[in-house]
Amino acid sequence: VSARHLRLIVEYDGRDLCGWQRQANGATVQGHLEDALGKLLTVPTAVAGASRTDAGVHARGQVACFHTERAIPLHGIRRGLNSLLPDAIAIREVTEVGEDFHPRFSATGKHYRYLVWTDGDRSPRWRHRAWHRPERVDLPAMEAAAVHLRGEHDFAGFRAAGCSAKTTRRTMEGIDLSYPEPSLLAIDVRGNAFLRNMVRIMVGTLLDVGHGRRSPAQVLEILETGIRERAGVTAPPHGLELMAVRYGGRPYVPRRPVEPVIGGEGDDSV
Amino acid sequence: VSARHLRLIVEYDGRDLCGWQRQANGATVQGHLEDALGKLLTVPTAVAGASRTDAGVHARGQVACFHTERAIPLHGIRRGLNSLLPDAIAIREVTEVGEDFHPRFSATGKHYRYLVWTDGDRSPRWRHRAWHRPERVDLPAMEAAAVHLRGEHDFAGFRAAGCSAKTTRRTMEGIDLSYPEPSLLAIDVRGNAFLRNMVRIMVGTLLDVGHGRRSPAQVLEILETGIRERAGVTAPPHGLELMAVRYGGRPYVPRRPVEPVIGGEGDDSV
Repeated sequence: VSARHLRLIVEYDGRDLCGWQRQANGATVQGHLEDALGKLLTVPTAVAGASRTDAGVHARGQVACFHTERAIPLHGIRRGLNSLLPDAIAIREVTEVGEDFHPRFSATGKHYRYLVWTDGDRSPRWRHRAWHRPERVDLPAMEAAAVHLRGEHDFAGFRAAGCSAKTTRRTMEGIDLSYPEPSLLAIDVRGNAFLRNMVRIMVGTLLDVGHGRRSPAQVLEILETGIRERAGVTAPPHGLELMAVRYGGRPYVPRRPVEPVIGGEGDDSV
Repeated sequence: VSARHLRLIVEYDGRDLCGWQRQANGATVQGHLEDALGKLLTVPTAVAGASRTDAGVHARGQVACFHTERAIPLHGIRRGLNSLLPDAIAIREVTEVGEDFHPRFSATGKHYRYLVWTDGDRSPRWRHRAWHRPERVDLPAMEAAAVHLRGEHDFAGFRAAGCSAKTTRRTMEGIDLSYPEPSLLAIDVRGNAFLRNMVRIMVGTLLDVGHGRRSPAQVLEILETGIRERAGVTAPPHGLELMAVRYGGRPYVPRRPVEPVIGGEGDDSV
């Protein structure tokens, strides 16, 4: 019997989860998926993921793969997993992929969205999905800073201390600012690959620019010197969502800045 | 000292709340507001609301009023209340209104939105905000049924058993169907006033039409006969949100059907 290689599109609400990666203690997405697959397939099954999202980070387009020799049809796997998984995690799609496909190593790009609630007062609606920064935002300054971040650069200044990546050159195909609704600022970041906490450090730095505490030129300086301490804080995880992972295909087309984003559009860019 | 009459715009996440109206047991919006005002103003303060939303129903534009003789500036009241209220409730605006203003009796219209998640699989993102109905939806049939509901009618067939309204004639200025994002059906209902559970019974009935279990003509029949039993189930509360309350001004302009709704647009229609 030859093993089938199956790919899942996974959506999750990161609020009560300790991130993607399986841990001895704490509920994780990988842990829940492996436990559910173990029950469904009645054999221990390992799952590989595209992005090791941190505790509290959300996803609507995480990609995960596993092998099985069972002949369960794809929709049966989708429904079976959804009945076994907690409400915070759902399988949106199951497809069969080639043996050489790997959710992380085959990926050619990822799209993350970070939400900031910019109103003076907090929002009950967005409290679990957006970082509340009540200060006034200078959008043209942020846009000028984002221009520096687009393209291929050494992003050493934008990675967490624990990041073990060997190279720090990455290509940002798009960093787009928009207001999906009044007071809700969306920062859409599309790139070929990311360093640890890179999007969240970019967001912290861009907001410093938006709040007048840092100039757009200083962002260029962080890229040139690679000094993490010159960048802004790491934005909290609950504002971040993995929208989609891309495999093959053309690079993301950068979107026009400050154009309203209609929810869900990111799913098309896989 | 003459008492000031102040109007609040209140946003809340209804999930862990027992609705608007103060109760002996259970956290309600009115109860939380009165408790917070009692602390802030140091005297017991009664709050009147525009809509007595049920347990589990959300709001981004609830309107509430109270009297006070304290000279605290409006922004101080907003900030003070927001620091005293739980995270699920926030004050978005405080304005001074005339003595004869009443949040409910002065209202000339309300806008409610009901969300339905129509995908075959549940969505972690929308699980607390949309009713999951995985069946295929016949949108043109629902649109044809919505046409019957628009305008002035006797809505006796669309009210809960416990409804005590003396008259049942109401005017629906708009019942608009749209997809704010793929698989997320929004039903925007704008009317001069509403009977108990009216929006939720309309939604249950419209979905029966969308699922082919009822014809658009049968909706006309429910209006003509006024028999509640001929209408659909009462849709669950967690899909419903009070978007805005209107005072004075022209009626809502019905929106073109099946046009994408960008989040937050409803706030402009007060």
